[in-house]
Amino acid sequence: MPLWHLYVPEDAFTDEDMADLANRITDIYSSPEAMENWGFWFPRFYTSVIFNEVKPERFIVGGKPRDKFIQIEVVHIAGGEPDSDRTPNERAAEYTGLTETELMEKYYQVVYPKLKPYIEDRGYEWEMHVENAPAHSWRIDGQVAPFPGSKDWDRWFEDDRASARTYT
Amino acid sequence: MPLWHLYVPEDAFTDEDMADLANRITDIYSSPEAMENWGFWFPRFYTSVIFNEVKPERFIVGGKPRDKFIQIEVVHIAGGEPDSDRTPNERAAEYTGLTETELMEKYYQVVYPKLKPYIEDRGYEWEMHVENAPAHSWRIDGQVAPFPGSKDWDRWFEDDRASARTYT
Amino acid sequence: MPLWHLYVPEDAFTDEDMADLANRITDIYSSPEAMENWGFWFPRFYTSVIFNEVKPERFIVGGKPRDKFIQIEVVHIAGGEPDSDRTPNERAAEYTGLTETELMEKYYQVVYPKLKPYIEDRGYEWEMHVENAPAHSWRIDGQVAPFPGSKDWDRWFEDDRASARTYT
Repeated sequence: MPLWHLYVPEDAFTDEDMADLANRITDIYSSPEAMENWGFWFPRFYTSVIFNEVKPERFIVGGKPRDKFIQIEVVHIAGGEPDSDRTPNERAAEYTGLTETELMEKYYQVVYPKLKPYIEDRGYEWEMHVENAPAHSWRIDGQVAPFPGSKDWDRWFEDDRASARTYT
Repeated sequence: MPLWHLYVPEDAFTDEDMADLANRITDIYSSPEAMENWGFWFPRFYTSVIFNEVKPERFIVGGKPRDKFIQIEVVHIAGGEPDSDRTPNERAAEYTGLTETELMEKYYQVVYPKLKPYIEDRGYEWEMHVENAPAHSWRIDGQVAPFPGSKDWDRWFEDDRASARTYT
Repeated sequence: MPLWHLYVPEDAFTDEDMADLANRITDIYSSPEAMENWGFWFPRFYTSVIFNEVKPERFIVGGKPRDKFIQIEVVHIAGGEPDSDRTPNERAAEYTGLTETELMEKYYQVVYPKLKPYIEDRGYEWEMHVENAPAHSWRIDGQVAPFPGSKDWDRWFEDDRASARTYT
């Protein structure tokens, strides 16, 4: 998590486009900019981006098949580790001093320029929304994600992959 | 939004079937019938319908591969525009005088005959559910959806596409 | 429901692998073990498992295309039948005497060994989460799922398929 599903026309993007766009999306959550914006910087491997191919006749908006439309569905896990009493959202709200609606406005101010070169600038219309899933339901390689700043977090961050928790 | 994902067997539907079924689905939210049922009538382009092809050996129900099963997943945005204090759901509840459970019963009374000719009448079994996503997380072409009755709403409705908000 | 979406590399699994893995997943909810763990035993056809194929260049984790990663998204309907005042979750909590977080820990203790032979033991990394959807939004073949122990439940269970409710 975060998990991004993009439903895109077949052949909309080259492999290089997709890798670059996925890196731009990952930067939203994992970069000096993320730290400045949200007060955190996730391990990069937390962000999964899946480009689902859709044929125009199978992608119908307002009753009309579309070949220039991209649907984006994002899932955020609205929490830190289940046994912690502070969530990343709470951290972000505390750090930014924003309400949840204001936080989403700021979020889209960050998201929009990341997507623009590959979506709007290429003439695609797009729709996007973000859902939240419960923190205690999340596992990576069967492990509970560690709390930011813990030794487990530091190791996952450096290795850029999950490993057995030590709970230190 | 609304966003409909249908997971259907390959070759279940012709292109004409899919366009017609998507139009029937769009009518649930955008038609004189929608206005009568829910007290609103969305711009047609709000409704996205994606037909995801699944091979029988990849679609397993109760442990058995199925070639006559359709899974339907719907996302509704349970809100008007983030800065408004009344949601479409509240509008619908006020208009209909129903509880949320009663509202879903009425919803399926509308949905069922829309789907019947393409699903039940063709011998498909089907399962469906509806999830709600937070209103402040939703954007079309990067824009916040306007409040019903506003000038922005009227323009989006007439053009049947999003355009830059004027907030009038 | 439950509904499992697995996003897997093309050719990760044979048809036999998928049928066996889906049966193992179904056992989580429908088996003597399920009864012992959660206090219920669903009809097997309640569990849908969809294996969505993803090409490596379309499955990007931390900005890097992956051919050994599996994303698992599960939807649970957090309720019994809409007109009942007790949910399966409440039943499970009552039966197990656990908090929701503890219930998820127990859940993954059951899930992990079911998935291990096909995922971890084959060198796949994996991420998983579970979302809950509202009970009153759920239909099978247009029918509201019956309350456990009712005549309708018993018939659905024996037939391993939905049929018109009698509400007895």
